[in-house]
Amino acid sequence: MRSSLSSVRQLSSAFQGVKESARYVPRRALLYVPASSEKMLAKVPSIHADSVVIELEDGVAIAAKDTARKNAAAALDKLAGQPRKAFEIGVRVNSVSSGMMEDDLRVLARAQNLPDAFMIPKVDSPEDLAYIFDTFKKEYTPSRVTDTKTRMVMWIESARALLDMPRIVSTALNLHKSTGFFKLDAVVFGSDDYCADIGATRTSEGLENLYARQRFVACCKAFQVQAIDSVYIDLKDEEGLRKYSEQGRNWGFTGKQTIHPSQVPIVQSSFLPSTERIEWARELAEAYGEHQKEGKGAFSFRGQMIDRPLLLQAMNIIQLDEAVKEAGKQ
Amino acid sequence: MRSSLSSVRQLSSAFQGVKESARYVPRRALLYVPASSEKMLAKVPSIHADSVVIELEDGVAIAAKDTARKNAAAALDKLAGQPRKAFEIGVRVNSVSSGMMEDDLRVLARAQNLPDAFMIPKVDSPEDLAYIFDTFKKEYTPSRVTDTKTRMVMWIESARALLDMPRIVSTALNLHKSTGFFKLDAVVFGSDDYCADIGATRTSEGLENLYARQRFVACCKAFQVQAIDSVYIDLKDEEGLRKYSEQGRNWGFTGKQTIHPSQVPIVQSSFLPSTERIEWARELAEAYGEHQKEGKGAFSFRGQMIDRPLLLQAMNIIQLDEAVKEAGKQ
Amino acid sequence: MRSSLSSVRQLSSAFQGVKESARYVPRRALLYVPASSEKMLAKVPSIHADSVVIELEDGVAIAAKDTARKNAAAALDKLAGQPRKAFEIGVRVNSVSSGMMEDDLRVLARAQNLPDAFMIPKVDSPEDLAYIFDTFKKEYTPSRVTDTKTRMVMWIESARALLDMPRIVSTALNLHKSTGFFKLDAVVFGSDDYCADIGATRTSEGLENLYARQRFVACCKAFQVQAIDSVYIDLKDEEGLRKYSEQGRNWGFTGKQTIHPSQVPIVQSSFLPSTERIEWARELAEAYGEHQKEGKGAFSFRGQMIDRPLLLQAMNIIQLDEAVKEAGKQ
Repeated sequence: MRSSLSSVRQLSSAFQGVKESARYVPRRALLYVPASSEKMLAKVPSIHADSVVIELEDGVAIAAKDTARKNAAAALDKLAGQPRKAFEIGVRVNSVSSGMMEDDLRVLARAQNLPDAFMIPKVDSPEDLAYIFDTFKKEYTPSRVTDTKTRMVMWIESARALLDMPRIVSTALNLHKSTGFFKLDAVVFGSDDYCADIGATRTSEGLENLYARQRFVACCKAFQVQAIDSVYIDLKDEEGLRKYSEQGRNWGFTGKQTIHPSQVPIVQSSFLPSTERIEWARELAEAYGEHQKEGKGAFSFRGQMIDRPLLLQAMNIIQLDEAVKEAGKQ
Repeated sequence: MRSSLSSVRQLSSAFQGVKESARYVPRRALLYVPASSEKMLAKVPSIHADSVVIELEDGVAIAAKDTARKNAAAALDKLAGQPRKAFEIGVRVNSVSSGMMEDDLRVLARAQNLPDAFMIPKVDSPEDLAYIFDTFKKEYTPSRVTDTKTRMVMWIESARALLDMPRIVSTALNLHKSTGFFKLDAVVFGSDDYCADIGATRTSEGLENLYARQRFVACCKAFQVQAIDSVYIDLKDEEGLRKYSEQGRNWGFTGKQTIHPSQVPIVQSSFLPSTERIEWARELAEAYGEHQKEGKGAFSFRGQMIDRPLLLQAMNIIQLDEAVKEAGKQ
Repeated sequence: MRSSLSSVRQLSSAFQGVKESARYVPRRALLYVPASSEKMLAKVPSIHADSVVIELEDGVAIAAKDTARKNAAAALDKLAGQPRKAFEIGVRVNSVSSGMMEDDLRVLARAQNLPDAFMIPKVDSPEDLAYIFDTFKKEYTPSRVTDTKTRMVMWIESARALLDMPRIVSTALNLHKSTGFFKLDAVVFGSDDYCADIGATRTSEGLENLYARQRFVACCKAFQVQAIDSVYIDLKDEEGLRKYSEQGRNWGFTGKQTIHPSQVPIVQSSFLPSTERIEWARELAEAYGEHQKEGKGAFSFRGQMIDRPLLLQAMNIIQLDEAVKEAGKQ
């Protein structure tokens, strides 16, 4: 354990630029918790999902938005410093097009604490992102959201957004660089809204969104951000959930949305890297440590030239593995 | 019937911007009629396909182009005011690259009447569209093609066009806005020419053009225009035709090309929205009407935020359903 | 034989612009030969693969790079004028990001002869190409690489490159036009590096890279360059190799990488055009010859308008067929 952890540290300090990503947040399973329900919010610390989404958007009726906002703000302060099972607790606000994001942020900003991640649904264009960053600047004041550990997670849910996704993701990363506000760390594919947008019907075969899901992964991975897969709707079909989770992992997704706690363990185990992958990552980290000791030059491992994206992947796998093992001990 | 129709009117008048699309033309099945054959042109009024394509392009030999142009022009005037079974009768001219479009339009412009839609094959670039709009301006004079009810339907049939499709579709819509000429309303995927262009071979499994067909749908729906699927070549295989029609509908296509009248009823029934979809659309229209009475604000229906593309979809479904029922009565 | 060859010549001379592509290099099967092994390099003249890749990159350990460079340079001079079974013998240098390309070219430039093709792995951006052309200019001096018969073959192996591929391919073609250096003739999909880049796992079903492979083909064919498919890893599974080779051909690929001589004949026979395709191409060439004699105007064949990409395809098929038959006689 110790030896590989220190390999990661070697990796980080040796390889300039990889360092910034050292704090890896596992997001194998995302679980939604509607902020309108105080009862459900109270359970958040004990939820075992990797990432808990305190929900102000689709999971909350319009009449309940105001209550939900206040509950979410209170939860942020209550949760601060408290032990929790999840690796991340985020708040999902309403979309730009809903016209409700400003109200959400005005109330959330009253909390002393920031969530681990701000979560933004239905990002449709680079212009949406400019509005989002402006709104945060206004409601939170720049000093509260600059150089924070808070991350950004966003949802892509329309044909327009999918087609323009490289520009959307790069704009999010560039706005982080120029403002110092939260860094985009993961993108989630909102397949139900996407299918509604193009008029598609979900089938059991699942071919209808192959193009969308695979393009989505490519657009995430081209910018080294996590790719989170669609919801599996049939709560009773564990076999189907496992099959689609594994398909998602094989296609390059790093995690999956869940809509019920019963789905979480299946999804989590499906998105755990295989023993071979973990071994590959640990040996690569060790070899890279050796390589760095011996001086500069190109680095090759198991017959493959190792570049920055592959180093990052190895580090992420090791950190995921260790985070999960660590959490298992609690 | 009446109540939902008036819901649509409420929808239209209430929701600025949706209004323009109120006149929805069903295009579940397109059928080609070669303009070289006077005998077949005479049957046009009795054809039950949603959209009849009077053909000057691939369906007409080069030696017969001139006759076909004159026949098509004569048909436009003969058909005017006559009862017809189709929702649309369009004329498909030759492509920009053929060098024959000017000759086509010169002869067609002699007719007193415009078709319901001008249909343009093999649009390959935004530059093609600039040429097309210029040629219409020259041959028809602007006054005859400005603010007309005539629509534009175009074909995407090459790898280059598919890759550049977002720019092509947005250019067509922008040229409509700046000139007032025909609005792009539907795009058709010319899969045989596409497969020839990339050197692909059609298989019974049909996987070879999955990427092309799904990207095509995304590019159409991102701009809210109809997406019309490939031809099914095997005239005897009704089961296969039904299977591919339903696959197309599930993937988000709004209709399909047919090459023989026997294919039309199967395609039409496959592209009819399901009872659940129609119910969803009618209830959404009703709920939106109520919502508008009560004042402003975000609108949510069945737990989903309803935005402009979804409102448009609901309206289109209701209009398709009513148009089809109306036509059934004739 | 003779008559169709002269049809091709008619085609070429008649159809301005098609001419330049007359020299078609079949690349049904590419085979890698590590330049670190003098023993394997000695066998190059007798290898029956269409295109032999003398390898300096992934197939050569870092410690062996220098030896491999010298071997490759020596091989270029030894091979000059010698009879050979392959249609092409190329050298694959190290990638831009490896930092080793300059050293590769410095040593290769000492050889009197150029390879038939320079082969460049991991091209990730138009900026990479600018660096590549600059480096060739510096190491080879412009006079040695201008207006040569040497072609360029490049590899696309990352999500970033796949997303930006239209710009990458057009930049390569434009840099050829502006410098006169080697023309891009084929692009190879490096699926293992691509899957590693997006974190995907290869499955026997093979769906995980459908989007990538089909987008790749579209991006190649939009610019009329050859598309070379992924490696099939399981050396013992001939049935699987044949199945994936045929799938690749049906999807529009023109050839496939191989990693062992035993794979070559299966791949070569899978990527041979069918008898019907060859017949189509020969009859089209003949009809086009007749058409040109009779004067100008649009050209239609078997009910399809024939444009430049289709003429090119027909010429390529005829030349592939004749090159293969010719080679069979040796």
